[in-house]
Amino acid sequence: MAEKKLVEAITSMDVDFAQWYTDIVKKAELIDYTSVKGCMVIKPAGYAIWELLQKQLDERFKEAGVQNVYLPMFIPESLLEKEKDHVEGFAPEVAWVTHGGLQPLQERLCVRPTSETLFCDFYKNDVQSYRDLPKVYNQWCSVVRWEKETRPFLRSREFLWQEGHTAHSTAEEAEERTIQMLNVYADFCEEVLAIPVIKGRKTDKEKFAGAVATYTIESLMHDGKALQSGTSHNFGDGFAKAFGIQFTDKDNTLKYVHQTSWGMSTRIIGAIIMVHGDDFGLVLPPKVAPVQVAIIPIQQKKEGVLEKAYELRERLKGSFRVKVDDTDKSPGYKFAEAEMRGFPLRLEIGPKDIEEGKCVLCRRDTREKIEVSLDEVEGKVRELLETIHHDMLEKARAHRDLHTYTAKDKGEFEKLFTEKAGFVKAMWCGEQSCEEIIKEKWSVTSRCIPFEQEQITDTCVCCGKPAKKMVYWGRAY
Amino acid sequence: MAEKKLVEAITSMDVDFAQWYTDIVKKAELIDYTSVKGCMVIKPAGYAIWELLQKQLDERFKEAGVQNVYLPMFIPESLLEKEKDHVEGFAPEVAWVTHGGLQPLQERLCVRPTSETLFCDFYKNDVQSYRDLPKVYNQWCSVVRWEKETRPFLRSREFLWQEGHTAHSTAEEAEERTIQMLNVYADFCEEVLAIPVIKGRKTDKEKFAGAVATYTIESLMHDGKALQSGTSHNFGDGFAKAFGIQFTDKDNTLKYVHQTSWGMSTRIIGAIIMVHGDDFGLVLPPKVAPVQVAIIPIQQKKEGVLEKAYELRERLKGSFRVKVDDTDKSPGYKFAEAEMRGFPLRLEIGPKDIEEGKCVLCRRDTREKIEVSLDEVEGKVRELLETIHHDMLEKARAHRDLHTYTAKDKGEFEKLFTEKAGFVKAMWCGEQSCEEIIKEKWSVTSRCIPFEQEQITDTCVCCGKPAKKMVYWGRAY
Repeated sequence: MAEKKLVEAITSMDVDFAQWYTDIVKKAELIDYTSVKGCMVIKPAGYAIWELLQKQLDERFKEAGVQNVYLPMFIPESLLEKEKDHVEGFAPEVAWVTHGGLQPLQERLCVRPTSETLFCDFYKNDVQSYRDLPKVYNQWCSVVRWEKETRPFLRSREFLWQEGHTAHSTAEEAEERTIQMLNVYADFCEEVLAIPVIKGRKTDKEKFAGAVATYTIESLMHDGKALQSGTSHNFGDGFAKAFGIQFTDKDNTLKYVHQTSWGMSTRIIGAIIMVHGDDFGLVLPPKVAPVQVAIIPIQQKKEGVLEKAYELRERLKGSFRVKVDDTDKSPGYKFAEAEMRGFPLRLEIGPKDIEEGKCVLCRRDTREKIEVSLDEVEGKVRELLETIHHDMLEKARAHRDLHTYTAKDKGEFEKLFTEKAGFVKAMWCGEQSCEEIIKEKWSVTSRCIPFEQEQITDTCVCCGKPAKKMVYWGRAY
Repeated sequence: MAEKKLVEAITSMDVDFAQWYTDIVKKAELIDYTSVKGCMVIKPAGYAIWELLQKQLDERFKEAGVQNVYLPMFIPESLLEKEKDHVEGFAPEVAWVTHGGLQPLQERLCVRPTSETLFCDFYKNDVQSYRDLPKVYNQWCSVVRWEKETRPFLRSREFLWQEGHTAHSTAEEAEERTIQMLNVYADFCEEVLAIPVIKGRKTDKEKFAGAVATYTIESLMHDGKALQSGTSHNFGDGFAKAFGIQFTDKDNTLKYVHQTSWGMSTRIIGAIIMVHGDDFGLVLPPKVAPVQVAIIPIQQKKEGVLEKAYELRERLKGSFRVKVDDTDKSPGYKFAEAEMRGFPLRLEIGPKDIEEGKCVLCRRDTREKIEVSLDEVEGKVRELLETIHHDMLEKARAHRDLHTYTAKDKGEFEKLFTEKAGFVKAMWCGEQSCEEIIKEKWSVTSRCIPFEQEQITDTCVCCGKPAKKMVYWGRAY
């Protein structure tokens, strides 16, 4: 009954996916709205996911030689304006500080929407010689973009992210770093978040303001819409020239540095929800689940039950994130709550189990129940968490593959985007005008030119002229 | 020669302490100035200290039942104005956002100087019943205060900190939490940063805008000036009444919550520098040193030397933060650089050492050299790091005690603040007017009413009326 009530509070994902998403975010207590329009509170259950994600991504950064720094959140207007494409891309959506204390400022400051300009201003002084290179810096911070439409995690006026900014002595090294960091993101998504991604390059239309090339990882949500899950940009020496970032090379000549930047944000939590969630709530990948094993005592008032639950917690907590739900709610309600919150394993233990020297482990992803001898709990939990990660990744991959279609011509393309939801692979001539037509007609954008190319046909799916590349198309968040 | 050059770049602390501080911050590459007036870049060497500090403080928070969250960086003007004392305290020094994108905002937003008002706005909806209490939330973020005079770490327009905000069902529980978190800070300073602190309560004049009581930990810098190193505030139900944060208690009546907040910021890195540093540079407490052992090969071009250095790194890196300086600089320069950066131990290894199966460990704090058999390096490093922490704390405590004076009357008080630099313990009548006179005459403020009281005399050091409390007085950063 209580279980039913909690689950009934969620709209079924097949009925209304957008409402399902909002319900999950609210009922799993990840986020709340605030009095500040377009800004959210990330609540403990949501922030704990971010912390685990941040820790593991940061470890991968450090292995890749990245150093963390912190730069100011304010950018003087004149600095933002130095690189032409960049300011055109961002100026329309920044928040402006005009007063400090009781005084108007001499120059407006924008709250950083991204920090390329500040890093350039910093590197301009910090880089003198080839010995100072490369600079491989990153910061964890919040950024602001004055969006009109906002949605929890996916789009808000302020969000948390990391932004890496590097400077190199050669173009080759910058390109290598751009790809290296894209691979860090891709591996992280698969190995930590159980989200399979497509790696590729953005078209010029979709690339970052000021970049020579933008690389992206694209993932497919349960509803068939795409989500750009991480990007890595190669700037060439464009910013370096605009900001005058020069160094004396080994041959004693002055050269401009080559730069990159790359970022991943709290958006990715939206992807976790929409790739793995179901009608019972959140399904968290074990590696970022704040609670990996939720121990739920059955008939907890009976002698020895709570004690056994605590004993199991003590045994498991050295290796796993464990919690005992010893509140006075009914077991059914506790089950439903643990499912809503997406905890990968639920451990049920009652008087009968104790008598028989066993307990029940219930997988969140499949809802399968497994009887386990109490002697073997640690090993079984470890094994199941690994299996769950593996199965979640494979399930997501299968879902994505099932919803990835191929269009040979305009007719097929139109039919697919009218009748199906998912990625459509199709050939493209390389002209922006075709992208514009496709966007205008079907609200579809090019997601990426994948590294793994296929020759589907020889002609552009839109204009019929000779095709240059195969592109993943989709509707995106 | 090279060593000399690097050290000469630092002004001696006895000649000009302020310049010494600036030199250290710059030469140890902790911070740099930016084009954004009053805002700094925290460089890798500085940020790595903050990360270590943050990790260890956060662990202590989690042990104390604290949960992390993230709230928006913007506060609508109307929200900031809800608590009268609070807005008076902060409005003069906040930065105002007036435009979002190309449009003027309907209501100005300030960039958070602190987040009491936002947490109140959040708790107002999130707290309904006694079952929802206590809320023990914290956020790691940056805040902005439009300071006129700025100094690296000590005072800047933007700085990093954590701010804890809690809500409780009773006044007693709020007071307990306020003191509990003050103790977390005090223990952290001594056990992690090797900084001894005085715990006490702020006078009403010095307390936080909107608080019923502010508790503080005060530390003494090498130059005899005080630094407020962490504060914990009890708000009573003042904010709750201003914001309408009510809950239904067990007895079914509506009650206001009682709240606290507590914070520690990047200022504390300033304290680390000014408590422990010397004329050779930074001296880092081992627990927050990004490099604990700097391995410096001597005659590194000779066969086997670099290999042995790397071998030692491999042996040590599982337990300690280790780095080999294999650059082509001279050993003397490397020594000076490792000292400048404050690494607790330097490990010197050359051909002769290898032959004799030993190496030299040099303590940064005492500059003492210790010969160690290569077989015993791990154990000796562990032991020395513990000793260094212990000795740094005791040295700082001895320095503070030596510079803590007692004044029985106005004459002594004046003489001490004219001739000496340090804490002065003296009796106080409890009147704000005496604090104002003392500040006006000698630029001295009450640092705290220490928990450990002494009855020095019966009369106020300023007005001669009956004394209520013993107070620590000092000049402060």
